Amino acid sequence: MATAAMITAAAARLSGHAIRTPLLSSPFLDELAGRRVFVKPECLQKTGSFKFRGGWSAVSALAAKGALSNGVIAYSSGNHAQGVALAAQMHGVPAVIIMPGDAPAVKIANTCALGAEVVLYDRVNEDRDAIGARLAAVRGLALIKPFDDPEVIAGQGTVGLEIAQDAAVLGVGQADVLVCCGGGGLTAGIALALAENAPHLRPRPVEPVGFDDTARSLVSGQFERNAPDAQSLCDAILTPSPGQITLPIMRAHCGPGLVVSDHDCLRAMALAWARLRIVVEPGGAVALAAALFHGNQLRGDTVIAVASGGNVDAAIFAQALNLAMTETAVARSLG
Amino acid sequence: MATAAMITAAAARLSGHAIRTPLLSSPFLDELAGRRVFVKPECLQKTGSFKFRGGWSAVSALAAKGALSNGVIAYSSGNHAQGVALAAQMHGVPAVIIMPGDAPAVKIANTCALGAEVVLYDRVNEDRDAIGARLAAVRGLALIKPFDDPEVIAGQGTVGLEIAQDAAVLGVGQADVLVCCGGGGLTAGIALALAENAPHLRPRPVEPVGFDDTARSLVSGQFERNAPDAQSLCDAILTPSPGQITLPIMRAHCGPGLVVSDHDCLRAMALAWARLRIVVEPGGAVALAAALFHGNQLRGDTVIAVASGGNVDAAIFAQALNLAMTETAVARSLG
Repeated sequence: MATAAMITAAAARLSGHAIRTPLLSSPFLDELAGRRVFVKPECLQKTGSFKFRGGWSAVSALAAKGALSNGVIAYSSGNHAQGVALAAQMHGVPAVIIMPGDAPAVKIANTCALGAEVVLYDRVNEDRDAIGARLAAVRGLALIKPFDDPEVIAGQGTVGLEIAQDAAVLGVGQADVLVCCGGGGLTAGIALALAENAPHLRPRPVEPVGFDDTARSLVSGQFERNAPDAQSLCDAILTPSPGQITLPIMRAHCGPGLVVSDHDCLRAMALAWARLRIVVEPGGAVALAAALFHGNQLRGDTVIAVASGGNVDAAIFAQALNLAMTETAVARSLG
Repeated sequence: MATAAMITAAAARLSGHAIRTPLLSSPFLDELAGRRVFVKPECLQKTGSFKFRGGWSAVSALAAKGALSNGVIAYSSGNHAQGVALAAQMHGVPAVIIMPGDAPAVKIANTCALGAEVVLYDRVNEDRDAIGARLAAVRGLALIKPFDDPEVIAGQGTVGLEIAQDAAVLGVGQADVLVCCGGGGLTAGIALALAENAPHLRPRPVEPVGFDDTARSLVSGQFERNAPDAQSLCDAILTPSPGQITLPIMRAHCGPGLVVSDHDCLRAMALAWARLRIVVEPGGAVALAAALFHGNQLRGDTVIAVASGGNVDAAIFAQALNLAMTETAVARSLG
């Protein structure tokens, strides 16, 4: 079970190894949103997403138990892959990463370059859990799951600890904290940290249209699943259903889920580029998109949005940039 | 005269108002550069450049003296403009900003949007100092110069204080600290801070080809000027010669200057996008370009580069992104 005490312990292990990201803001985004907007830019984290926190937390916890000898194994669409690969490399042990063959090329290439052995699988016809379990058993590797692992959740929860600290300095009262949500590791970790350290901040998961399994699960109390043929640009957070460990934590501590479109994400990416000077990937932009374009579903004069990752192919980013140029041109022609 | 004590005082006034930027890194940049590379991302600073620090430092120092009543005036190609405009707005006083008519559209638009009154001038045929002096006298405004102002230098120097703090945590020994240099306010401020707090870190100005007035002035000991017809993408740092206050500080504390091409800057922007997930403007990328592509002129196993700003028109940024796509395609075709 993941606990607030485990998050504090993970923060101590991460200190000096992970980037301490600040909260960013822009008066232009405040005006657009109609409230103060703070963004936690985990795209600046090592390997380009918050996943390095969970990877480091899990690998360092295994190291402390002397359980790292043969290395680690993980499955991931890309960001968890890179986080675990770098954490393993920094600990001097091998990492095997199982990735879908249709993951963004940049994520596969980067995972290889971080020294990991990459095993590609067919996302439609093969079962990554089965592949992972088999390789882990045969080679004696420690499996680090992407979200249903207490030490991974504890690592992601350090994002929430930092939000609580910085929000206190900024004098933030009641506010929604919007979190990009796939399997729910980041959302559950932040929820535990805020419940303990800043209960006036309410965590809420944000998902892409067609992948709102967590939002629906929070309503129904069941493990809802997404349609198998759903499509989205938000590759980082396309999980079939919430985690067995993460959903109960989110049910205990989170407000209602929010859902945004791919177009909302591209616009949020363009605004993050122009106004915060950060590079955000589609799945990392869902929370900012909700903060900017779905304000009628929020409460309070302040919103905090996590920008969870920035590993995006140049061609997709160019789409967002073109949108920025078009919208700027429109704004200029209007005076 | 700007002093290390003034930098410490400015840091106290900036606390809670400016972003405390971290040092970013990437194993990919380390490999490319052949040494550890740390980047201080001041593009994430409020208004998108370090200039907010100097603007806030100067405005808050005037406020403490009760000298803000009629407001402030500044001249700037754009980043100092925005920094002063936001600092004045946050202090509740008017700001008049004199900008060249050919400054990037995004910088002019943003300065207006931050509540400033913008006065455009012809950079070739008019003298901005004369315009500024006249308006300041007629309207009783306090002039905040872009670099030859001790409180502005003190504000920029807080970047150096933070670099000294973070480098100590990271265990950095002897290293060059590369600083994007126009009039030299940032370089001089960082130089003062490092001389006092981290004398093993050696500040060095970096300039674009055709605008290497500071590099040449450091060699000759005179105030060297650039050719009036020189051209560069690096709009933020195209000053005719070093400042009267800044050059003596740089002569006392800086290592030799470095010079980079516009193409180097675009490549550095592309790599900052891909590997650090930050948006850097051409003039803000000269130091990173020197760190990555001119390593034979550096000493030590570590280099620290300031990414000084990120206010760039989308069309210019698209050039860098196209370069990233082309180079990625080349890298892939080579395996």
